[in-house]
Amino acid sequence: MSPTKQFNPDGKDFKLFTPGPVESPEWVLKEMGKANDTHRSLAYREMHRSIRTNLQKLLSTKNEILIFANSGTGILEACVRNLLKDDETGLFFTCGAFGDRWISIAKMNGKKSDVVSVDWGKGISPEIVKTALSKKKYPVVFITFNETSTGVLNPLEIIGPMVKESGALLCVDCVSGMGGTRLNVDEWGIDVALASVQKSFGIPPGISICSISERTFEKAKTVENRGFYFDFLKLKKKGESDEHPITPPIPQIRTLKTVLERIIAEDPENFYKGHTERTQMIRDWAIKNGFEIFSEEGYHSQTVVTITNNKNIDVAKFVNDMFESGYKIVNGYGSLKGKTFRMAPMGWITKEETQKMLDTASKVLKAL
Amino acid sequence: MSPTKQFNPDGKDFKLFTPGPVESPEWVLKEMGKANDTHRSLAYREMHRSIRTNLQKLLSTKNEILIFANSGTGILEACVRNLLKDDETGLFFTCGAFGDRWISIAKMNGKKSDVVSVDWGKGISPEIVKTALSKKKYPVVFITFNETSTGVLNPLEIIGPMVKESGALLCVDCVSGMGGTRLNVDEWGIDVALASVQKSFGIPPGISICSISERTFEKAKTVENRGFYFDFLKLKKKGESDEHPITPPIPQIRTLKTVLERIIAEDPENFYKGHTERTQMIRDWAIKNGFEIFSEEGYHSQTVVTITNNKNIDVAKFVNDMFESGYKIVNGYGSLKGKTFRMAPMGWITKEETQKMLDTASKVLKAL
Repeated sequence: MSPTKQFNPDGKDFKLFTPGPVESPEWVLKEMGKANDTHRSLAYREMHRSIRTNLQKLLSTKNEILIFANSGTGILEACVRNLLKDDETGLFFTCGAFGDRWISIAKMNGKKSDVVSVDWGKGISPEIVKTALSKKKYPVVFITFNETSTGVLNPLEIIGPMVKESGALLCVDCVSGMGGTRLNVDEWGIDVALASVQKSFGIPPGISICSISERTFEKAKTVENRGFYFDFLKLKKKGESDEHPITPPIPQIRTLKTVLERIIAEDPENFYKGHTERTQMIRDWAIKNGFEIFSEEGYHSQTVVTITNNKNIDVAKFVNDMFESGYKIVNGYGSLKGKTFRMAPMGWITKEETQKMLDTASKVLKAL
Repeated sequence: MSPTKQFNPDGKDFKLFTPGPVESPEWVLKEMGKANDTHRSLAYREMHRSIRTNLQKLLSTKNEILIFANSGTGILEACVRNLLKDDETGLFFTCGAFGDRWISIAKMNGKKSDVVSVDWGKGISPEIVKTALSKKKYPVVFITFNETSTGVLNPLEIIGPMVKESGALLCVDCVSGMGGTRLNVDEWGIDVALASVQKSFGIPPGISICSISERTFEKAKTVENRGFYFDFLKLKKKGESDEHPITPPIPQIRTLKTVLERIIAEDPENFYKGHTERTQMIRDWAIKNGFEIFSEEGYHSQTVVTITNNKNIDVAKFVNDMFESGYKIVNGYGSLKGKTFRMAPMGWITKEETQKMLDTASKVLKAL
């Protein structure tokens, strides 16, 4: 079912509760629409520097911060191109569509993968990781922090140190987790923590970011054919003087600078807490209305809630009626279409707005 | 010499006459700051569709249009990854820094290249192309339309058909040419014509675009390890239903839609004519003030003017004093620093604004 309502950017009359891109508040949009200097300027270097400094603070890391002029998917590709030699095999843990995508990306780059997958909705437990690591020695491990398709959050605080002990590099897709959920990059031993800005940061899409450990750069030096655009070493070299190898999306970079300043000024703990409370409100609403939560108990995401359609409602109609009522939520991802639906209160959405959305959802549900 | 003046995006008090990113007028910035729907929406598909249709009109082509979520450099990389097998050798013509970059990119992707280079400032003549093509049969030829570093415009209307006759695919870097200079893609036989939006279109950076011929897609099908992010076939498949494989920079896409509508509505010939007139004004000013034009006669770019510093002025001071006076122009690129400087009246800059800039340049020059 296609939405019947049209979108009017000049007078947007609905709010996004989508798992990215998410709702951007007025003050974020205002940053996006400001005038630009070029990327070879003091103004640019100051923004770049500010992002490096504040992301290190947010992620509790001393690792280098790189800004990519592409979506998070581009950094997934960068990881396999920079860190896996053609004769090496990476270990990929997957619990959903975006974990699967990383494996496809490796394959499309001619890289070899061993895959450990769990049923969608399940988390990747420390036991699963322990077993996989005991079978073989791997140079690099790839795992998803927060799986956007299933609403699963994996326990990186336990998995990270286990991977580090194995000697492997650890690359973590934090696309829909970073910002909304605490990430202790150094303590957890994450070598590459990557994310996009259109999720918890609440910025329109266009750039992605990651922290990279020194030993990751050392490994990259030994890998051939890393390419140009996604080359960690080229980005590092330019980045050290707060510059970029190519012409990056300046509006998104300016906006990220402002957003990070605000998150840090207001204390990141409050930002995480807001996400946790809002997703809990959604899970409570779902259960109260007779639905089940798709993600396994103990592995619930703090940024996106995937709700099981155990009541067998017409999900497409529910999603469309919600849109007509002023809220955009989304159907299940890929094969989960019709079997689940998702609500994501990421970024700068408030508890009050979340409550209003849920009140509307109750009404729409009754009228289905 | 570092600029002493600070940039204030809230009250920008200077105009960019830089070879990209260029000055974005208020109505462009307003588009950038509008609210967004997600990229999986009717609103997105309509924008994507509009760009495909209008770019085909602008480029006089029936070829497919792809929208990339990266800078133009990413499409340079896409060309070598999609179109050169590891055992094939591409023929690269270069007349400046960005032609050289394409060769580096090929190398960094493990691709082989034969290189034909001319002295910086010279154009790539049909004779040079004829000689190179007569020596060996090539699967793909790579050439720059408008070389941003030297201000050279190559005669694609003659070179294109020659390459086509040789049987090779023709990839053309039109980054700083497209929009400001007529491109007859089908008539000239260009298989890949790629560009960024932060040049003649006057949009903040963040996306790039290209037209791709059917035989280019056919060739890509035979090349292994094309990767994911830059894969022509993946972008084509999603693009045919006006969607994108990843989450693209929606604000830049919305703005490109609006800009293309305006260029087409006002007649592209007028847009080209404006660029031609403004660059001619700059060349006239340069000669009147005792400078020489760096680009060879007959090969002058219609979008960026590279001026030779034959008067041996302090270019860094001149550029900085211009900035203090409200106009940002730039020093020579790379090894041309101090030996040349560049003024680019691209996009929506008017003749009146160009004249004011040149009047200021005369004053600043006298006071040096």
